[in-house]
This record gives sequence, C-alpha cells and structure tokens, in this order.
Amino acid sequence: MSSKSYFSGVSRRALLSVLAALPALSISARAQTAASGDTLPSWNDGATKQAILNFVAAVTREGSPDFMPPAERIATFDNDGTLWVEHPMYTQPAFVLDRVKEMAPIHPEWTNTQPFKAALEGDMKTLGAAGEHGMAKLVMATHAGITTEEFQKIVIDWFATARHPRFKRPYTELSYQPMIELLAYLRANGFKTFIVSGGGIEFMRPWTERVYGVPPEQVVGSSIKTKFQMRDGRPELFRLPEMNFIDDNVGKPVGINEFIGRRPIAAFGNSDGDLQMLQWTTMSGGVRLGMLVHHTDAEREYAYDRDTSFGRLDKALDAAIVNKWTVIDMKNDWKRVFAFE
Amino acid sequence: MSSKSYFSGVSRRALLSVLAALPALSISARAQTAASGDTLPSWNDGATKQAILNFVAAVTREGSPDFMPPAERIATFDNDGTLWVEHPMYTQPAFVLDRVKEMAPIHPEWTNTQPFKAALEGDMKTLGAAGEHGMAKLVMATHAGITTEEFQKIVIDWFATARHPRFKRPYTELSYQPMIELLAYLRANGFKTFIVSGGGIEFMRPWTERVYGVPPEQVVGSSIKTKFQMRDGRPELFRLPEMNFIDDNVGKPVGINEFIGRRPIAAFGNSDGDLQMLQWTTMSGGVRLGMLVHHTDAEREYAYDRDTSFGRLDKALDAAIVNKWTVIDMKNDWKRVFAFE
Repeated sequence: MSSKSYFSGVSRRALLSVLAALPALSISARAQTAASGDTLPSWNDGATKQAILNFVAAVTREGSPDFMPPAERIATFDNDGTLWVEHPMYTQPAFVLDRVKEMAPIHPEWTNTQPFKAALEGDMKTLGAAGEHGMAKLVMATHAGITTEEFQKIVIDWFATARHPRFKRPYTELSYQPMIELLAYLRANGFKTFIVSGGGIEFMRPWTERVYGVPPEQVVGSSIKTKFQMRDGRPELFRLPEMNFIDDNVGKPVGINEFIGRRPIAAFGNSDGDLQMLQWTTMSGGVRLGMLVHHTDAEREYAYDRDTSFGRLDKALDAAIVNKWTVIDMKNDWKRVFAFE
Repeated sequence: MSSKSYFSGVSRRALLSVLAALPALSISARAQTAASGDTLPSWNDGATKQAILNFVAAVTREGSPDFMPPAERIATFDNDGTLWVEHPMYTQPAFVLDRVKEMAPIHPEWTNTQPFKAALEGDMKTLGAAGEHGMAKLVMATHAGITTEEFQKIVIDWFATARHPRFKRPYTELSYQPMIELLAYLRANGFKTFIVSGGGIEFMRPWTERVYGVPPEQVVGSSIKTKFQMRDGRPELFRLPEMNFIDDNVGKPVGINEFIGRRPIAAFGNSDGDLQMLQWTTMSGGVRLGMLVHHTDAEREYAYDRDTSFGRLDKALDAAIVNKWTVIDMKNDWKRVFAFE
C-alpha cells in the first residue's frame, strides 16, 4: 500500500454507543443460509461459482484422481478487500487515528509533534507526506506500550462503536456475505480455513471467529514483538514498539509456512499483496484453486483495480490469466454483497 | 540447555534400513487403547491421574462453575522430555551430527575447520568447548541453504533410519505411551492439543501428526528465517542461515500468543524451559492444569532433575509447590513408559 492510502479518509466514532457486545450478525446465523438448500446462495450462477463447485467436487470425491484427504484441505483468505471492505481506507489506520485522538489528553506534547499533530487535526496532506515512517510512529504509539490483554480490550471496545464513513455500520458488518458462505461451504467439505492478512494479527483475532467462523489460532497476520514478564506476581505479555513480522507480499508464503506448516490447496485474495500467496498455493502441481476478488461494483461497494492508491490489483490480475486463477467479478458474480442488503 | 549437552552422545544411523514409511506405531493404533475401557490405561491410579480426571471433569461438565467452552480448551505440550526421550542428548543435535557426516564429501574444507572437524571426528570435548556459537554454526550449515521441501525430505529420511543409542529404536517410538493417551483423552474431551517446543518447528512437523495426533498447524517451535523466491518458474521457500524465533523459556508464552492467540488452560512440561509456559497458563484465574514430567526412572528411562547438564528441572520444581502444579513421578505414576514394553 502507499502511505497516502492510510489517510484518504477518517472513520468517525459514534459517540453515544455503549460498550456492548459487538453488533455484527453472528456466524451461526449467517452460515445457516449456506447450509440449507442452495449452496452459495449469494453467488449468481455462472463460471465463477462453477469453478468453486468443480474444485471442491474434484478434491473431495473419493476415488477422484485429484482427491485430497481432509488434513490437506487448507484454504487461506486475505482479509482487507477479500473478506471485508477496505475502502476508503483500511480499517486499522482508522483505528489508529481514533486511538491518537483518544490518547491525546495524556500526551499533551502531541499537539506540537508530527505526525501526531496532523493526526489530531485531520490534516491528511501532512500525514500523507509523513509516509510509512510517519504511520509507523502512529502505529507504535497506539499499539505498543501496553499488555496483550489491554490491547485486546481496546480493540473490542473500538469495534463496538466505530462506524464506516459511507455505510454507517460497524466494520464487522461490512464483511462480504458471499465470502462468508464460501468459508462455511469449504468447512462443510472438510477444509480448514485460515486468514492470512497484512493486517495486525491482534487487531483481527478478537472478532474473526464470530464474523467469519475462523478461530484465533487460524489467523496469520502482521505483528509487533512482545515480551514476557512477571508484574506484581502476575504473568503478562508486554507489547514492544518493534515490528516482528510483516505478513504481506513475499511475507505471505513465509507466514503460511511458519504458522500453518502445510501448503494450501486454495487461496483467495484481491490485490498484488496476495500475488505470492496465490503463486505458492497454485503452482505446485495438482488441482488447485486461486481466486481474486475484483472490485467492479461502485454502486453496492467500490470499483478499483490497477489505478487505486491502495489495494491495487495489477500484477496479480495479469498473473491470473497466465495461471488460470478465477477472477470474481463482484458486480456480476455476487447476488448480494452484504448481509444487511 | 548447556552446550555440553548437545554432544554427550551421538546417535548412529542404521546403514541397511530402506527409506520406507517411518516405522513408529501409528497414532490410530495407539490411541485405541485410551478410547476403550479404562481411561489412561498406562497411568497408575493415584493422585496424579486423579488430578487429570478432576480437571477435565471440572472444565467440561455443563453447569460446572469451572466450565470452559470447547473453543477455550487449549492444551500445550513441550516435546523433548515431556512427550519423548531427551537423553542422552536431544534428538535434533543427533540429527545435526549425522548431517555433518553426510554432507562432508561436498565440504572437504570441514576436515580442517572447527567445529566441523570435531563433529566429524566425534570429538565431544572440542565440540563442548565450542559452545552455543559452535552449535549454531553446525545448525546453520545443516538446516539452511536448501528449500523447505528439501529439508522436509531430509528429516523424513533421517527418522526412517536413525536409532536411539540406548534403546536401538527409531526416535519416534520413544514417545511416552501415557502422554499419548493423555493427548488423546484431552482431544476426546474437546481439547485442541498443541506442541510448544524449543526444538525446530520443521524438524517436528513431518511426524507429529502420525506420532502424537498433532497436525503441523498445531506445532509451535523454534525456526530460522525463510525467503520466498521464484526459481525456474516455481515458487519456493529458501531457508536462510539466520535465527527467526527461539521458542524456549520466556519465548514460549510469546510463541503461544503469536501462533495460537489464546491462553491455554492446561500446559505440560518437564524442565525450567517450560517454567514461563506454565506460569502463563495457570496464573490467570480459574481452574487450570499445570503438570511437570519428573524423570525418576533410571531403569525404564532416565533419572535426572536439578543436576543434569540439560533438561534441568530446578526452578520449575520449586515453582510447582507454590503454584500447585502436579508433578508426574515417572517411576510411580506410569504403568508403562513406552508402547513397545
């Protein structure tokens, strides 16, 4: 992503919401649709849906030359732009900007220090000019210096009240209904589904099970270092202001190998950040499924590919033709995009 | 571990074995014992066995004040000395020494270069003097510079023929039958079982599912860095001679948090390297199970604790009293140690 992208918009925090249970529909309710009657009901019939059905049939039918035992049915999903909305800005930078405002009273020096000053004033031009280095400062100031338990509570509280600037809904409701059905359909066919995201691993884990049916131990993501220590006789993990792992681009196959230890047989992405994950998954012999979500629906969601400042789909779109990956045309392949439609 | 420990003995490779399927008993055969009739049949009745049964009853009985939903039933197991034999030397250094000999023909310079010369000559005194730094050189020379697929094949081939110096059996047969029953018993009660070991993650993953019923994605361990690259149009992960993560001592809670993302409710170890894992698991409120395998059986296995040069159980043994962890007395609590007895 380009640094500019982080600041192309700021989510606003609903002031009056209570810190209640997170408001997204639960996976159990949403997955039921997929289990009863029509398979993948939010997908239009056509070549894309058929590619999924054909692949699953090939690898699950006993006696098929392409049969894979359940243990090898590993499927990996990117998150931003693949499972939920990533425009007009990624969710995590929206969280960062809200956190800077929240923390400002105990950091009076921020009113005179960049990039904090710009973040507090919503000065997107200055923030953009501060680039990745500026963003890293904001991330470390808001993500480190506390324990893992404290951070988890902050994330849960934020998701309970934050709203997407266009859809005015909790971010967790902006997951794609067809992809949630696909996750459930794969699991019903013996697959183990993993998230492999450039996003922060501890920013996702508190809600992925409820929203996607993917438990924390099946989430791979970027992370900062933590340090074990005893404090007042209690063990804790303290979050350090130092990058540990960046799970994007060439990092995705590395993360898959380190966390999962098996090569997936199906992988789903939407941008050039997913190119290497799809290469690693599909270019190893055997029947494999590589899919890219192509954002073609400005009306129901967004339309962007080669020319966007982030979530760019360019090299991977070319590679899809060469490697016979299936490109999901959001506008034509999805009957509905969100559960709330 | 002290560096001396790595070289206190060298496993010999059986020359005539074929590179066939690995010879250990399969988990399916071994777990059957646990499923039928007596629970944990290789455990003698007594306080230790009862501690396990009481804990599982408390956290699985609906309506119990200590009930934990299946998703939270995470159990973590150390490997060396907890699930299989670690004396007279860890298995992985035995692998390293065998690999050095295997690779020597393409490294003629090793006959004049330490610590390789000492490794080739079985000169344990010089190897011991070379310390951790010397061991790191041998590890990188034998574990890096190849792809993950190549390394996996080397590991599988080695286990097919290597034999333990005392028991003259494949290392994978030297897993403890009571612990294999315990793993199966916990899984039968809705637990997800993980290995959290100081050993190399890619040294364990090829066989943990078959031997312990623990799939690769539930193995946490130490690792070196890998690099994604395309070579001749094929994606590969190349193993670099650089440490990535050391999953021991304070590293164990860090690894648990990074790979699993939930705090275990039961943890099993045997040495001071497991101290922090047991602290992290048990000192968080609620009914928790912390257990230490105490090697008290020189006849059937080995006897060591505070005075051994490696696998030392000292601080953790003191902590067990304070924290009410259960200490497994191998000699008295285990009816049999190995499946082949």
